[in-house]
Amino acid sequence: MSDQFALDPRLEADTVAVTRLPVCDVRLMNDARFPWLVLVPRRYGMVEISDLNDTEQTALWHEVRLAAAALRAACHSEKLNLGALGNIVRQLHLHVVARHHDDAAWPGPVWGHGVPVPYAADALSLRVASLQAQPWS
Amino acid sequence: MSDQFALDPRLEADTVAVTRLPVCDVRLMNDARFPWLVLVPRRYGMVEISDLNDTEQTALWHEVRLAAAALRAACHSEKLNLGALGNIVRQLHLHVVARHHDDAAWPGPVWGHGVPVPYAADALSLRVASLQAQPWS
Repeated sequence: MSDQFALDPRLEADTVAVTRLPVCDVRLMNDARFPWLVLVPRRYGMVEISDLNDTEQTALWHEVRLAAAALRAACHSEKLNLGALGNIVRQLHLHVVARHHDDAAWPGPVWGHGVPVPYAADALSLRVASLQAQPWS
Repeated sequence: MSDQFALDPRLEADTVAVTRLPVCDVRLMNDARFPWLVLVPRRYGMVEISDLNDTEQTALWHEVRLAAAALRAACHSEKLNLGALGNIVRQLHLHVVARHHDDAAWPGPVWGHGVPVPYAADALSLRVASLQAQPWS
């Protein structure tokens, strides 16, 4: 059994890589219904935010802020939603989601709502590129 | 029209006061299904976390951490859920919820799930007292 960080296979299957920040991998949920980033701290065995040390927690909130800014700049958004649940996938991860009043789940939460709609290949590439083009700093 | 902070009437109706921290009022959701704290920064007109200044954001995350620790110490919890949605009540507020695998919404999110079950008066007093007895520092 390895004590090295490895991305949970369900997160890996549901998301695509956007960028790598000092603490977190930033990934896009492959669900065209919602512009939706997932931040995964690259630390082994983390479940709760409080499992991170103080320095890592400070960095985490900074990276959440960068993700929110990138999402707002790259995608239409009326309201950002932030969530850390982990009831299904226990590996610590945070969601930052751009919401608007005519999206599929409005005004309810996105988690557990209906069935994901994967992006078309071109749309996925465009969205990832537009997010990667943000400053991330 | 006042530019003074006032708690949103829906938050006021759905929650009861627990304690007052430097930035946030901490309130208990009056829903016996889930041990559930709501943190409301006492700042006028805030909607997104990024509406707070840097100092306030740092304090907010510290206060979220205190709320998580208090909830964990006072209530049975297998997993904490953190959320900032604001799709219905726009006044900035954060949710910290203690979850377990036999709760009413597991493993889905609590937001928008079913109908709140108000605490019996004694149970509400006990829960508030047990939360208030936590160190909050």
